[in-house]
Amino acid sequence: MKVYLDNAATTAMDDRVIEAMLPFMKSHYGNPSSVHSQGREVRTAIERARKKVAELLNATPSEIFFTSGGTEADNTAIVCGIESHGIKHAITSPLEHHAVLHTLEVCEKKGLIKLSILDVNGKGEIDLFQLEELLKANPNSLVSLMHANNEIGNLNDLEKIGTLCKEYGAFFHSDTVQTMGHYTHNLKELPINSLVAGGHKFHGPKGSGFLYVNKDKKIHPFIHGGAQERNMRGGTENVIGIIGITKALELAYEEMESHQQHVGAIKQHFIKSLTEAIPDVQFNGLSAEMDKSLYTVLNVSLPPSEANRGMLLFNLDLEGISASGGSACSSGATVGSHVLRALNHKPERDAVRFSFSRFNTIEEVDYTISKLKELYTVEV
Amino acid sequence: MKVYLDNAATTAMDDRVIEAMLPFMKSHYGNPSSVHSQGREVRTAIERARKKVAELLNATPSEIFFTSGGTEADNTAIVCGIESHGIKHAITSPLEHHAVLHTLEVCEKKGLIKLSILDVNGKGEIDLFQLEELLKANPNSLVSLMHANNEIGNLNDLEKIGTLCKEYGAFFHSDTVQTMGHYTHNLKELPINSLVAGGHKFHGPKGSGFLYVNKDKKIHPFIHGGAQERNMRGGTENVIGIIGITKALELAYEEMESHQQHVGAIKQHFIKSLTEAIPDVQFNGLSAEMDKSLYTVLNVSLPPSEANRGMLLFNLDLEGISASGGSACSSGATVGSHVLRALNHKPERDAVRFSFSRFNTIEEVDYTISKLKELYTVEV
Repeated sequence: MKVYLDNAATTAMDDRVIEAMLPFMKSHYGNPSSVHSQGREVRTAIERARKKVAELLNATPSEIFFTSGGTEADNTAIVCGIESHGIKHAITSPLEHHAVLHTLEVCEKKGLIKLSILDVNGKGEIDLFQLEELLKANPNSLVSLMHANNEIGNLNDLEKIGTLCKEYGAFFHSDTVQTMGHYTHNLKELPINSLVAGGHKFHGPKGSGFLYVNKDKKIHPFIHGGAQERNMRGGTENVIGIIGITKALELAYEEMESHQQHVGAIKQHFIKSLTEAIPDVQFNGLSAEMDKSLYTVLNVSLPPSEANRGMLLFNLDLEGISASGGSACSSGATVGSHVLRALNHKPERDAVRFSFSRFNTIEEVDYTISKLKELYTVEV
Repeated sequence: MKVYLDNAATTAMDDRVIEAMLPFMKSHYGNPSSVHSQGREVRTAIERARKKVAELLNATPSEIFFTSGGTEADNTAIVCGIESHGIKHAITSPLEHHAVLHTLEVCEKKGLIKLSILDVNGKGEIDLFQLEELLKANPNSLVSLMHANNEIGNLNDLEKIGTLCKEYGAFFHSDTVQTMGHYTHNLKELPINSLVAGGHKFHGPKGSGFLYVNKDKKIHPFIHGGAQERNMRGGTENVIGIIGITKALELAYEEMESHQQHVGAIKQHFIKSLTEAIPDVQFNGLSAEMDKSLYTVLNVSLPPSEANRGMLLFNLDLEGISASGGSACSSGATVGSHVLRALNHKPERDAVRFSFSRFNTIEEVDYTISKLKELYTVEV
């Protein structure tokens, strides 16, 4: 049995997304910046896509910029947010994705900003009082805090953080790569300056993404060149990527309720069955609390076991089960997770992230639990 | 009849490229950074692609970095070339693509560099003596000069420029977007630090590209995040883009000789027939000199004509002929061409770029010439 439980790393493309992309590979090949009919038909498709994304997020089309993915979008928001608004201080958490952390560290190293890193407790929760103190002490800060953590699934309250940022005049960016397409975002209501998406996290293509920047505080471009994306990103548009991410987001919004129910049920079943199978199991961060974590992510801490120490992912892979040790972006097992380190996860316990999608089934969970049980009863 | 003569803006994808990409849309969807089998099979495909690109260009795989296109690659080479090597002076020409010109202008505006712009004559030729004087006066410069101009097709001698740059210790970057896949590049022999490619210029997908950086002078990343591309570009890889651009380059190299002959013959036929049809026609830059310009590009200057003034591209489009007024990246007709301005092209004459590919035929050229003749004999 092949079981793919690494959906926070990337998801399988939806056939309907592929169908939507194919005409732009096979026949509609014009350059959207060309003025002739072959260019204009593609320009129309791109602007229709932008309008659709804006509609779904309750934003305006001029606030949506297509990018090559979530990482480029994070880099753009952070680097150009800082440069465009004379920002000298930034606040983030040690649990952010490297697309945010490394970008801020580089800005600090260049002397552009002073960087404050929030404390987190053993569950990975940040302290909003500490955030408020920092905001108070450092006017015109940039705050970058993710919506949901990609490893432990912890959800941050964007509403509360955004309200604080607004009160103290901070630029609030959020890495929403793990929630886009899985939760709704209402950008007319949410007090936020920028957020991002990566299409491959919700059954769209890799290499596609977008950046939302609220029109009240514009930023300058990150990639310079032609006049594409309203002068906000040079380079011929990745047309199939734009068509793909838009179709994927449209499907995600149309079917969100049933997916949330289906995937949420899978996660609950996983927690219950695993706790019965291996009583000493623990769950990292808030990932076992259904209302405080992504319904797609479960981060499991397994009892100390000589046979599995450092080999758990490999042992699972041999059984046909794909899971992850942390963020896929950090080359997996070899580096270790900066998130689990920040949570003081005990090194003698192996941690594994199982992440689910609407393509997973209860049978796949049962198979996975049975294999985990086998792996962890060998020594008893 | 539909005739697509805007191949310097973008090309139709080759069916064999689409075939190569499809399995990575439909089934091989793992994240290449994941350690399980579904991740590793995609990682293998990417590294095989990198090796293939390196082989074709006579480079080493560690010198090839996949990007979202030529513009991102140009931005990376220029911004990070300057920052990584403490460069305070850059040299370029007024005929460069905006991906180069605007990026350098931004670096100048930030106070990172002083920018010297070479003179060009009425044919768009740069002066290598002037380049040498500037290199002599400004040690540790960055030089960015394109291989072939995207509007008028002028070819620069990379060998000569590179040799000068090497002599004076300059970092030499070249925007090779218009020649990659159309000419061979032997990077073991060519004295160059970096060059770029955009897949859609040679029948690959839009949103794909790569950057070559010679190992002797490494640069730091432009987009920060995960450890992808040997820590040189954060962000989950655009797998289908990488597979697509590699297949397109492979086909381009395999079939280059026959394409050069086919497309070159089309261009020669176009020049001859157009000169017979409209005797007062002129050709901008060096584009009518077969050995000094891209065989894919012909930039035509038409006699003053009230009926066509500013309407030529539109009139051609009505006849089913797609051509371009300048670079597609500058939103076509509305802005006007910075290249033709630098050449003092007379505003009373309409200029149009016809650009050819291996999918064009002599019949299409004859049709186009007959329509141009009609358009320009109405008033006589």
